[in-house]
Amino acid sequence: MWQYKAPLRDMRFVLEHWLQAPAAWAELPAFAEVDLPLALQVLEEAARFSSAVLAPLNASGDRQGCSWQEGEVSTPEGFAAAYRAYVEGGWSALACDPAHGGQGLPQLLDAALQEMLYASNHAWAMYTGIAHGAYLCLDVHAPQSLKERYLPAIVSGESLPTMCLTEPQAGSDVGLLRCRAEPQDDGGYRLTGSKLFISGGEHDLTADILHLVLARLPDAPSGTRGISLFLVPKRLDDGTRNAVRCDGIEHKMGIKGSATCSLSFDGAQGWLIGEPNCGLAALFVMMNSARLHVGLQGLGHAEAAWQNALDYARERRQMRAPGRPEGVAAAPADPIHYHPAMRLALLRLRAVSQGLRVVGYWGAHLLDQAEHASSEPARQQATRLAGLLTPVIKAFFTDQGFHLASEALQVFGGYGYIGEYGIEQTLRDSRIAMIYEGSNEIQANDLLLRKVLGDGGMALEELLALFEQEAAAGGEHADPLSALSANLRVLVKGILKQTEGDAEYPYRIASDFLHLLGWALLAYAWARSARVAAPLLAGDPWYQEKLDSAAFFFSYLSPEIDLRIARIDAARAPLGFLT
Amino acid sequence: MWQYKAPLRDMRFVLEHWLQAPAAWAELPAFAEVDLPLALQVLEEAARFSSAVLAPLNASGDRQGCSWQEGEVSTPEGFAAAYRAYVEGGWSALACDPAHGGQGLPQLLDAALQEMLYASNHAWAMYTGIAHGAYLCLDVHAPQSLKERYLPAIVSGESLPTMCLTEPQAGSDVGLLRCRAEPQDDGGYRLTGSKLFISGGEHDLTADILHLVLARLPDAPSGTRGISLFLVPKRLDDGTRNAVRCDGIEHKMGIKGSATCSLSFDGAQGWLIGEPNCGLAALFVMMNSARLHVGLQGLGHAEAAWQNALDYARERRQMRAPGRPEGVAAAPADPIHYHPAMRLALLRLRAVSQGLRVVGYWGAHLLDQAEHASSEPARQQATRLAGLLTPVIKAFFTDQGFHLASEALQVFGGYGYIGEYGIEQTLRDSRIAMIYEGSNEIQANDLLLRKVLGDGGMALEELLALFEQEAAAGGEHADPLSALSANLRVLVKGILKQTEGDAEYPYRIASDFLHLLGWALLAYAWARSARVAAPLLAGDPWYQEKLDSAAFFFSYLSPEIDLRIARIDAARAPLGFLT
Repeated sequence: MWQYKAPLRDMRFVLEHWLQAPAAWAELPAFAEVDLPLALQVLEEAARFSSAVLAPLNASGDRQGCSWQEGEVSTPEGFAAAYRAYVEGGWSALACDPAHGGQGLPQLLDAALQEMLYASNHAWAMYTGIAHGAYLCLDVHAPQSLKERYLPAIVSGESLPTMCLTEPQAGSDVGLLRCRAEPQDDGGYRLTGSKLFISGGEHDLTADILHLVLARLPDAPSGTRGISLFLVPKRLDDGTRNAVRCDGIEHKMGIKGSATCSLSFDGAQGWLIGEPNCGLAALFVMMNSARLHVGLQGLGHAEAAWQNALDYARERRQMRAPGRPEGVAAAPADPIHYHPAMRLALLRLRAVSQGLRVVGYWGAHLLDQAEHASSEPARQQATRLAGLLTPVIKAFFTDQGFHLASEALQVFGGYGYIGEYGIEQTLRDSRIAMIYEGSNEIQANDLLLRKVLGDGGMALEELLALFEQEAAAGGEHADPLSALSANLRVLVKGILKQTEGDAEYPYRIASDFLHLLGWALLAYAWARSARVAAPLLAGDPWYQEKLDSAAFFFSYLSPEIDLRIARIDAARAPLGFLT
Repeated sequence: MWQYKAPLRDMRFVLEHWLQAPAAWAELPAFAEVDLPLALQVLEEAARFSSAVLAPLNASGDRQGCSWQEGEVSTPEGFAAAYRAYVEGGWSALACDPAHGGQGLPQLLDAALQEMLYASNHAWAMYTGIAHGAYLCLDVHAPQSLKERYLPAIVSGESLPTMCLTEPQAGSDVGLLRCRAEPQDDGGYRLTGSKLFISGGEHDLTADILHLVLARLPDAPSGTRGISLFLVPKRLDDGTRNAVRCDGIEHKMGIKGSATCSLSFDGAQGWLIGEPNCGLAALFVMMNSARLHVGLQGLGHAEAAWQNALDYARERRQMRAPGRPEGVAAAPADPIHYHPAMRLALLRLRAVSQGLRVVGYWGAHLLDQAEHASSEPARQQATRLAGLLTPVIKAFFTDQGFHLASEALQVFGGYGYIGEYGIEQTLRDSRIAMIYEGSNEIQANDLLLRKVLGDGGMALEELLALFEQEAAAGGEHADPLSALSANLRVLVKGILKQTEGDAEYPYRIASDFLHLLGWALLAYAWARSARVAAPLLAGDPWYQEKLDSAAFFFSYLSPEIDLRIARIDAARAPLGFLT
């Protein structure tokens, strides 16, 4: 049956050997007290919490779903108790500033925590997943009085926040939103309008809910330049309910334990966050963190898919395989992972999920550097690199999370299609992450148009310099990595040239470019993994798997890179309109 | 909201212009009375039935699902009435022999009917979908007395058959099955054992259900050589219940209106079909037809995905697109199908789903030729080609059905993930077709090991000759089709050579080879579509879409072909085992 055990050994490999994070932390005053033993202790406790508390509620939460009655939402059995355990464990405070009651740990450790939460129970983790982004946003943009009032409640877990952006007519196009905010004499505002698809918009985990709401001031310009951000609590200071009502919840394909709410604001009291008409800018501070989170959902699903498929493939025997490992005698029916088709699926699951972990954690590590590195140029470079990686992490990871869940389901055969084995839930749950927090198509445009072409290729050049630095350090896969870097440089020049006479071209290739960069980052991840694992192998045979996966990647998976390059080239052909 | 309208115009294009089926029918005595007007009339009535009767039950059937109580199964509201309408419409008799009460129409028309049934309500069509295969099997292998007793009941729709193969320990490996059959003095048998995942194993559509059951005789050899086929009716001739019991139904990811049953046979009365220990051979006669059916499920889902995504993309407006069709003025927000990412998704949906239709109908047309062509060599060649195409149709179509459903869901954004728009149901329903009736991995091995390498490449050579014949006829895409044919010939030689020293190689590349052939068949489909459409364009602008889709295929989709060739090449590298 479906289960989840956090891959602590692999997480440690990424932290200790691939990122060499402890050495980096030692150089940052903010993390002077963080070292490897502390990090491992945090991960072990997070692993215990996710396996013992959240994973057992994953299937039951899916079966029960949420229910709505008269504006109130009940979450599945056990969800509220698990949230109390989460708060008592101090998890809500992990990466928050000690000034507000936080533990001040790196976002890198938070990323590992998030991976575990999403892998063990995506629906449950939807309630907590937005808190850190909201925390960042309020910390930077809220007036002091609001910070004092609300930040400790978020850090302690007493209140959970939401993000209220979408309206029925305004999804990807937030500029179309209509929710209105009327200024009041006391300096506050009254908000009126309807919001859709609000995760955790109403629930029974906390008494108060803090809505971050995008709305228009009376004299605001149309489009995205007339949008302001407001904080609208569910409960007012006198304990009464604010004029926010949950009109219903959605019946969804997956994450059924997460309440996806329609909210009506009917003159609800709120306070402005940031400057008038600068609501999108105020959200910008949380964008990288929120998108990284969604990418970690993809990683979590990929990991859960991989470990459950492997467990099943070890138990299930069907037919004789055309070959078996040395020393294993023929049996009437072999474990299915001997069969080449299943071996390929499992090796893809392993190589991609573990490669995503490297890239995702690196993205989190860069966010730590962007905030805490000691020099301004170092902070700026980390910011640029994190900005480049973030859309790839969001979109490539979630595409892969869904794709690998389907690949794992296939390993289960008919048993994969029934509820009992849980893998079909992984597939259903994983699908949403390709859509929300900026659809994967939006991410692709952000990557190519803004992050790559928008800065004249500077951030990408810095990434390629890292590829070349890795290649220069030697290692078994230095040559293909070096060649890949050169190819990417030529490709981007070609894109710039084609774009001069064909302004639509980058839009036509944006998604392929994002996937290309995703596979290229996996190549970097595996080349470096193999190089740093090689000298460790003598002391511990565990590292052999790293060398094997790297070799598998560079033979069996690298054609994905060429496919994307070929598609980018093919898209020079004009693309007609539909009628 | 989700709806289905049969694509009659495109179906006619394939029948009339691509296949030129009426001319072929005219040469076959069995179809002497079938002409284009009759065929179109059948398709129009099937379209009415599927849109008016089945499509409205698709979402409600998914919501209600089936229920089981004390061995009895209730299907969703309306399913039984829809079945009565199906029977009254004569649809169960469509492609059956007039000698048994059938209408004797070509399997090609049945394929179009099946596409409509599966597209409008996959779960419902699971009950009727197996009937034609069972009919074929009994017609060829059952003793005369059983044929007289049961064939008319299948043709009239009075009884529905099942296929009882799978057992808990025996899925892809049917040789592991344990169900036993004890001979009785009256020439009959008593069957004992458990069967799993039996579609329509129990339901309330018909009073009788005819189970075709694989079981072992007492002295049978182990493995696949000791399996016999039996007919086990739910009701005995005296009206009493046979000792077959439904122990429960599965809770599945999709096709929830289809009852997937566990059946217990407890000394149930049955009769041998075919020779003892030759049960698999007896099923062989229905294999191509059954696998074609499952492929048509993939086509049906692809079509439903395409038309619903297009409808939504025409209504939904978000953001300004970087370009719009000539003569269209800028608006604050454009219909989303102007946006390049969405245009690409929709053009892929159109080109692939319509290309699959060509290949699928061609497969059905070949089955008609294999049975009815006037010369033995023509029948043999059609048999070989149909055998080659069948695994591709089963596996490539169902992979694409799932993939395109996901692509269409993405067009809907957040609305795609909720139940209301129906596309998430298409995604869930489509997933099973990659698993059952021989998993797609089994199909890939069948294609490469048996159908291509097993006959020394003869069937493939016949296919390539058709590609070259098409290329020689000219047309805009003759050159890439001709080059593709040459590449495939070289590739297969390389595979044969590599296999000499590396017997596992074909197993490692089987799935990529199947997808390669799938894309190659689409190339053939589109090259020919464009050539036959070109002269028709002057009389009707409808044909412009065919030229556009062909051009789109050969620029934007042909890199898929190169990817598969590259992966087949990359798989020369050794592939380790998991531990």
